Amino acid sequence: MKSFNVGMVGYKFMGKAHSHAYKDMRMFFPQTAVPKMKLLCGRDVNGVSSAAEQFGWDGYVTDWRDLVSHPEIDIVDINAPSDAHKEIAIAAAKAGKHLFCEKPLALTLADAREMLQVAEEAGVKHMVGFNYRFAPAVQLAKKLVESGRLGDIYHFRAWFLQDWIVDPTFPLVWRLQKEIAGSGAHGDLGAHLIDLAHFLVGEMKEVIGMSETFVKERPMPTEMTGLSAKGSKDAPMGAVTVDDATLFMARFANGALGSFEASRFAPGHRCTNAFEINGSKGSVKFDFERLNELQVFFTSDDEDVQGFRRVLATDPPHAYMDAWWPTGHTIGYEHTFVHEVVELMTAIAEDRQPVPNFYDGVKCQEVLEAVDQSITERRWVSISDV
Amino acid sequence: MKSFNVGMVGYKFMGKAHSHAYKDMRMFFPQTAVPKMKLLCGRDVNGVSSAAEQFGWDGYVTDWRDLVSHPEIDIVDINAPSDAHKEIAIAAAKAGKHLFCEKPLALTLADAREMLQVAEEAGVKHMVGFNYRFAPAVQLAKKLVESGRLGDIYHFRAWFLQDWIVDPTFPLVWRLQKEIAGSGAHGDLGAHLIDLAHFLVGEMKEVIGMSETFVKERPMPTEMTGLSAKGSKDAPMGAVTVDDATLFMARFANGALGSFEASRFAPGHRCTNAFEINGSKGSVKFDFERLNELQVFFTSDDEDVQGFRRVLATDPPHAYMDAWWPTGHTIGYEHTFVHEVVELMTAIAEDRQPVPNFYDGVKCQEVLEAVDQSITERRWVSISDV
Amino acid sequence: MKSFNVGMVGYKFMGKAHSHAYKDMRMFFPQTAVPKMKLLCGRDVNGVSSAAEQFGWDGYVTDWRDLVSHPEIDIVDINAPSDAHKEIAIAAAKAGKHLFCEKPLALTLADAREMLQVAEEAGVKHMVGFNYRFAPAVQLAKKLVESGRLGDIYHFRAWFLQDWIVDPTFPLVWRLQKEIAGSGAHGDLGAHLIDLAHFLVGEMKEVIGMSETFVKERPMPTEMTGLSAKGSKDAPMGAVTVDDATLFMARFANGALGSFEASRFAPGHRCTNAFEINGSKGSVKFDFERLNELQVFFTSDDEDVQGFRRVLATDPPHAYMDAWWPTGHTIGYEHTFVHEVVELMTAIAEDRQPVPNFYDGVKCQEVLEAVDQSITERRWVSISDV
Amino acid sequence: MKSFNVGMVGYKFMGKAHSHAYKDMRMFFPQTAVPKMKLLCGRDVNGVSSAAEQFGWDGYVTDWRDLVSHPEIDIVDINAPSDAHKEIAIAAAKAGKHLFCEKPLALTLADAREMLQVAEEAGVKHMVGFNYRFAPAVQLAKKLVESGRLGDIYHFRAWFLQDWIVDPTFPLVWRLQKEIAGSGAHGDLGAHLIDLAHFLVGEMKEVIGMSETFVKERPMPTEMTGLSAKGSKDAPMGAVTVDDATLFMARFANGALGSFEASRFAPGHRCTNAFEINGSKGSVKFDFERLNELQVFFTSDDEDVQGFRRVLATDPPHAYMDAWWPTGHTIGYEHTFVHEVVELMTAIAEDRQPVPNFYDGVKCQEVLEAVDQSITERRWVSISDV
Repeated sequence: MKSFNVGMVGYKFMGKAHSHAYKDMRMFFPQTAVPKMKLLCGRDVNGVSSAAEQFGWDGYVTDWRDLVSHPEIDIVDINAPSDAHKEIAIAAAKAGKHLFCEKPLALTLADAREMLQVAEEAGVKHMVGFNYRFAPAVQLAKKLVESGRLGDIYHFRAWFLQDWIVDPTFPLVWRLQKEIAGSGAHGDLGAHLIDLAHFLVGEMKEVIGMSETFVKERPMPTEMTGLSAKGSKDAPMGAVTVDDATLFMARFANGALGSFEASRFAPGHRCTNAFEINGSKGSVKFDFERLNELQVFFTSDDEDVQGFRRVLATDPPHAYMDAWWPTGHTIGYEHTFVHEVVELMTAIAEDRQPVPNFYDGVKCQEVLEAVDQSITERRWVSISDV
Repeated sequence: MKSFNVGMVGYKFMGKAHSHAYKDMRMFFPQTAVPKMKLLCGRDVNGVSSAAEQFGWDGYVTDWRDLVSHPEIDIVDINAPSDAHKEIAIAAAKAGKHLFCEKPLALTLADAREMLQVAEEAGVKHMVGFNYRFAPAVQLAKKLVESGRLGDIYHFRAWFLQDWIVDPTFPLVWRLQKEIAGSGAHGDLGAHLIDLAHFLVGEMKEVIGMSETFVKERPMPTEMTGLSAKGSKDAPMGAVTVDDATLFMARFANGALGSFEASRFAPGHRCTNAFEINGSKGSVKFDFERLNELQVFFTSDDEDVQGFRRVLATDPPHAYMDAWWPTGHTIGYEHTFVHEVVELMTAIAEDRQPVPNFYDGVKCQEVLEAVDQSITERRWVSISDV
Repeated sequence: MKSFNVGMVGYKFMGKAHSHAYKDMRMFFPQTAVPKMKLLCGRDVNGVSSAAEQFGWDGYVTDWRDLVSHPEIDIVDINAPSDAHKEIAIAAAKAGKHLFCEKPLALTLADAREMLQVAEEAGVKHMVGFNYRFAPAVQLAKKLVESGRLGDIYHFRAWFLQDWIVDPTFPLVWRLQKEIAGSGAHGDLGAHLIDLAHFLVGEMKEVIGMSETFVKERPMPTEMTGLSAKGSKDAPMGAVTVDDATLFMARFANGALGSFEASRFAPGHRCTNAFEINGSKGSVKFDFERLNELQVFFTSDDEDVQGFRRVLATDPPHAYMDAWWPTGHTIGYEHTFVHEVVELMTAIAEDRQPVPNFYDGVKCQEVLEAVDQSITERRWVSISDV
Repeated sequence: MKSFNVGMVGYKFMGKAHSHAYKDMRMFFPQTAVPKMKLLCGRDVNGVSSAAEQFGWDGYVTDWRDLVSHPEIDIVDINAPSDAHKEIAIAAAKAGKHLFCEKPLALTLADAREMLQVAEEAGVKHMVGFNYRFAPAVQLAKKLVESGRLGDIYHFRAWFLQDWIVDPTFPLVWRLQKEIAGSGAHGDLGAHLIDLAHFLVGEMKEVIGMSETFVKERPMPTEMTGLSAKGSKDAPMGAVTVDDATLFMARFANGALGSFEASRFAPGHRCTNAFEINGSKGSVKFDFERLNELQVFFTSDDEDVQGFRRVLATDPPHAYMDAWWPTGHTIGYEHTFVHEVVELMTAIAEDRQPVPNFYDGVKCQEVLEAVDQSITERRWVSISDV
């Protein structure tokens, strides 16, 4: 059994999720490889030191360069704000470290492609954090598609709906500012849908999108922590510079039709990351708010008892589930990260690229940018043209 | 093709449902036999004449004796208040008329047995109005049980929940008065569950129950129409003399365990008439609020895609559905009555007893009384002892 | 109380639904006006005469001209194949008859506009058969939108999914031939979604669509009845000339974003006619397979108990429901037609245009054609340009 | 901030869940007190040493007496087989250790009462492992009941359904042998329902039950691990000596009616631990298979939008949830244990008894035994008489 030393940059929402995943992997998936939580990095010394203590890291640094160049570090985990990904990843790759980078890989496609190229040239392993692939119910969907049990794929429709900024007095947090966040619902939520589409159906040929910013001005925030923020009635207003919602249609390489919708303006949807696939032999439906379930339909069922089956993907036949609890005992959001680091560690131990890797990150960025271009130019855009 | 002349006593809620069923049968199920809406009977001449006009009856009378003795009448349909069932049914049977009687057959088991005996001696056909059997989804459940596709039956659990009298100021309508209604939730709602249990699982050996009247006094009603009524704050109070809720457990002849619950004190349940059956090879679940659906589970499904299937029982393979609309087009409550009269007319045309008939009405009454006795005596009561 | 004589052209699926609606209206909604089922018209004398007998029409003719010119006819109901709508409607309007025409009004927008113009000039009432508006749950959605209880509308997403032609050996019925059917999923299913969008959200400004015919050749049918057909392995193949699926995105006049999907290639979906609306104060969700339910969310609910409410629209507060059964007793597909003819008869009795009328039919056709044009030209098309 | 040293006896299913809870508490709930994973105890030296390593315990012992008497241990966590609970707990209490004991507290009511008495006399804190109380959705149900938002409680109905032994060739594991397991579905599953009833509705006055062993003989197991086991066709048969299913009815002290059903013979139910409460002002429904959700109904909602709300209990207003992930991100089964140890540690730090404690364990045992007695004697049994 091998072990690898991890150095991680970032300790907020994603940093917490990753830290927990390393801990849980040691306990529930100890077979192949063990991640050692060596070094945590953050700019604020008080924040990073207390996070390191709370999350169980051996030590901490305040400059990511110290982490990237540290001789004992095998893997660099990057979940700092998106605009910092590229520089850290490239430095780490050049230092021979394996990479685990949160999505989006970078703020632009060009940057993402450069990151992929550098990582490939450096010969390191590289992974991108599309965690939803690792829900056992999603893995089941993948198995059904790949084994042909759904037949030829005709439709992929997906929507990622939230409602946390519906209130127009919610303040102008960094996620609503283009210069920091890159984009709004499109890059934050749509990116996950695009990756699931790639995972489950394959590449797209062309896309056309539309988007809207429903609330165009918001009060400047007086205080911010993670996703939440406090505002004030008297605060000055600032312009929202990202999309509140982006929709697009796509044609897949295999002929399937895709429809995608990402919105933060869908009251009642806390985190509806949902998709449906229709094939010639059956269909599947998934909703992250019921993460342990996959709805499955087969045209070959006896005609008097056809119907979508609610499969609870908590049994031993389902991916990763034999490591957890007895059948019927559900898992939650954070488990997708545990499975993700299992893939990362196993791939490194087996000397192969983990999946999804930077190539998948680039593919996602291509679609994001093609959609943006299609919106600007009000026309269909071929993926191969971006 | 034969036709039969119907004379019907009663024209309120059930009278409307039956009238509509006769009309719809003519249109959707014209193959075997045709019901002619000959004579409607009610005591109030204004009420019955306008109902006859509205519902499409050829004529009306105000004395049921005139209807029962009418030489052109083939079938007497009795949906007058329960305390009138026995006298009318016996007179009609002795006059050689076929009988279609709403549930409950009578107010007591002894009366129900007498009605069955007279009908049998008269050699007439007799049917009892357990309409829920005729939902296509319930028919599917029956088919799955009878064909052995669910294996040996272990459990039957059923509950009929409503909430129309939760408000303690709701007035003391006749359904809350024992001398008129016989019983409360038990006879009104529980009777349907018992009949479904008989239909789907078979006879019971013994039962034990409990019941409660949560609101013991209510304002006397100032006006009443059908199920609804108006009250007044200043109205005098009267004692509620029936049960608000009755529960019981049962052991079936085939070894299955039964659990039954009827209540009018379940907020949020408008009309939840629901059951579940668990067998060695599978399970089914039904809820009348989603009348077109049956949830079906098979242990023989591939282990990675096991789950309850939501079967929409609107396809041609499902009972009665080829006469209605294309697949996926749902039916409603009233259709159960159409199917019921199809059974009645077909049975008469084919010179056989319809099902469910007075025998089933008696079997239901036996269980109702056994449960009542078990509550009074606080002990298990054998069905064969009542 | 007034009564009107109806003459109806067509007696298949829609003719049956309309006939039943006239009968049921007499029984359940007798207050305002009464439809008299005077004359049925069909080309095949055997077919039309037996349908007239079965459905309860007073008489029949085999030439629609005899019906249109009949002096006793007040209303002409047109549910013959779509390519016959225009000629009959125009002749009837010129003869001073009120019009009730099934959707689509005509095969082209130009024809639809002409029909509207002629009807207006003739001063007759005109209605178009968008029956889904008349589900009480949809009426509730309308009430919530119109009263402002959902706030400003941000999103309308809708999909009408079926699966009856997924099997590639299903024969080439007339609905798959452009010259007869006009279009495929787009005009058949999408048209309903468009009308619901107009009803609930308002007019659209611009659209862009995509479509596909997944199975391009099918065996010629050997026999056809209604929607079903029989094929044969040895039958010669013919080209499918309509779309199997059409998707489009739309921008509404009020700024809302729309996404629409109509497909006959969605296994497991018998008749999923579903939509969701997101507004600044709440959301609603509807699915025709659960026609009695509306999911409703309000942002103003106490924050610890926010969630979509499953409203069973069977209570007296809901449109049309006080005429049917007690609360909790569901209705089905055909009831939407009963409510539709109630609107028709009431409007005529009150001397106002019924809603939806030919104007709504034209508006729907505009969007259908704009989408078609956007597909051909691969660009956004303004509704005002078609 | 305080810290406490834990010594734990047992390292299988429950031992893993507890270990994980201690680790996660450190990371997600570090405010009040910190559990130190000091000493793990198991009889098999290989098993316990490798578990200690995998789960992160500082050390291990093979004799629980060494653990109980260890001077550095503050808390003794007992999740060894049920027949060992009493001896260990009493010894630990006498050594002044705080106690955390899995359910059932003991095999008999007498033993449970003795354990409570000893713990009280020793003045130590004592907790019993009814983890389902700690699902945030269950906590919400509790809040709604206690604050009066559901009004007077009329009904509590609950069922815990599984299907892992439906196959009659499934071997005779220890859980099916009375001498080791004490009882079957009743003690294993029913116990959880009883505790939830106590938590949510209060004490019961009297009960009557029924039970059955559907498969009376099974092949002796050839190998066993945790809940799973391997059998063999040629294995000799042995008698199943526990119940496969137990049902009972109850009358609560507050007048509510209870109905309970525990079964391992319900195909399709992997782990349906579900309950519903009906009160005069509203209702709630819970199902552990959708652990993050509570269905909530209020009679005070506007009459046109009444319906069960699907509340996703993942928002900050919900118990424990501000420590986890952003709203809409679900948790799983294991989180109930984390919250459980948070209560344990906080209570010890605050020098109060944790809830649920041994008193609750005794109350549960009383009902279990009263039900058993009612089955044997075929009569209602008062809780105060056992």
